[in-house]
Amino acid sequence: MYAGYDMQAVDAKSVRELRFEIEEFHTEYCNMLDRGALDQWVDFFAEDSLYRITARENADAGLRVGLVYAEGRGMIRDRAFAIMHTQMFAPRYMQHFTSNVQVISVEGPDLGLGDGSLIKAQSNYLLLQTLVDGPTTIHQSGRYYDTFVREKGRLLIRERQCIYDTVLIANDLVYPV
Amino acid sequence: MYAGYDMQAVDAKSVRELRFEIEEFHTEYCNMLDRGALDQWVDFFAEDSLYRITARENADAGLRVGLVYAEGRGMIRDRAFAIMHTQMFAPRYMQHFTSNVQVISVEGPDLGLGDGSLIKAQSNYLLLQTLVDGPTTIHQSGRYYDTFVREKGRLLIRERQCIYDTVLIANDLVYPV
Amino acid sequence: MYAGYDMQAVDAKSVRELRFEIEEFHTEYCNMLDRGALDQWVDFFAEDSLYRITARENADAGLRVGLVYAEGRGMIRDRAFAIMHTQMFAPRYMQHFTSNVQVISVEGPDLGLGDGSLIKAQSNYLLLQTLVDGPTTIHQSGRYYDTFVREKGRLLIRERQCIYDTVLIANDLVYPV
Repeated sequence: MYAGYDMQAVDAKSVRELRFEIEEFHTEYCNMLDRGALDQWVDFFAEDSLYRITARENADAGLRVGLVYAEGRGMIRDRAFAIMHTQMFAPRYMQHFTSNVQVISVEGPDLGLGDGSLIKAQSNYLLLQTLVDGPTTIHQSGRYYDTFVREKGRLLIRERQCIYDTVLIANDLVYPV
Repeated sequence: MYAGYDMQAVDAKSVRELRFEIEEFHTEYCNMLDRGALDQWVDFFAEDSLYRITARENADAGLRVGLVYAEGRGMIRDRAFAIMHTQMFAPRYMQHFTSNVQVISVEGPDLGLGDGSLIKAQSNYLLLQTLVDGPTTIHQSGRYYDTFVREKGRLLIRERQCIYDTVLIANDLVYPV
Repeated sequence: MYAGYDMQAVDAKSVRELRFEIEEFHTEYCNMLDRGALDQWVDFFAEDSLYRITARENADAGLRVGLVYAEGRGMIRDRAFAIMHTQMFAPRYMQHFTSNVQVISVEGPDLGLGDGSLIKAQSNYLLLQTLVDGPTTIHQSGRYYDTFVREKGRLLIRERQCIYDTVLIANDLVYPV
């Protein structure tokens, strides 16, 4: 039930500050992807992390099958390397839009501001694609189900589940979201 | 004329705080709709409320004709019930994106923070639709013209006018925005 | 490299406040354009300003060739006048969505709050178009590369470079972004 900002663990003001911080995280993360700076992708993840892209119908059915799955920074680095060194079928630009960030829960010291804190959040993302000489189209729309961990003051992804609505994805390029 | 944040009734800092609160309202509201939790839709409305979806060309012409019209929580509850118990033509996912929230005016006690305050705001919304095995497409883009009332500390919709640009809406499903 | 909010010139809290202010600038600016109030467009620019729309492939190649170029408030006013008095090929609605605002650097007095301060920022924009009786489509997606100057307390555009991904733009109407 809708109850406004009424969380038990932390007060509303702290939750809002975390929301802002997560928005800024998304902005830096998406800008990195949109610039194609995939060598920096791993910098957004904690050592012990999980990254998965799953169709919403599978997620709703409780299936853990994913379009993409990476566990740990090593696998994430490998995946970035693979994408960077794969000849794409056709050159294209990608652009990410994030919105509607929602802090779900906060665990740990100092209302989420202390190192080791775990912050769960959900956000909408929209990934646009532009092929050379083509129109800009919706490549994928979905929702991030994130768990962030704070290390040395800043947020890192502990777990990112990207649940996408768009079933009909051009599978030739599974670009990160 | 553009004049930065220079409102007479309230100071800029309070207006910004209200903007944040409305963003969070939209996020919870849209998430509820996107999850299909229509039984909770009515919880976002005040008892004495108005909900209307109108084409921009009708709104511009001053016509109060609407695609959807509901007055009071009873009618809103009825409408939610009808949608939930109607066999859809085809299963689909909906996803709402909101942005560009603008506080227009504030009336009432304590710069909009007191109960009974009325806050007018406008925001852009984008509603995406994904049919099973189809691409994600733009179902409707438009602008919320909202009046919120504060009750027991939280915002509720007193009036929501959804003015949509997209004339060519698949009328078989008039899903809430 | 991603380093969280760790800028040298200003502290994180000030940067965030500037981010909010720029979001509000975009909201007012885009709403003005979406209402078709082009006579007010020039009010968002400093006297000594630059406005340019450039394809990303040209920008990436360092080419300063632009789809649209205007230098100074006079040229911007002329351009607005021209668009307002041109018979459009077909009537249409435009809607701008902005997101992922990122403050890049701040120069000047009082952490960007003093008059004469220069604030560089980048933001994503999505421009939707709806032709009468047609669907809503993506007209242009891109990124603002802005320099704002503060004058009499409020932000004005000193330089706006709109770098668009969408190469296939309907050139019959080069509407502002």
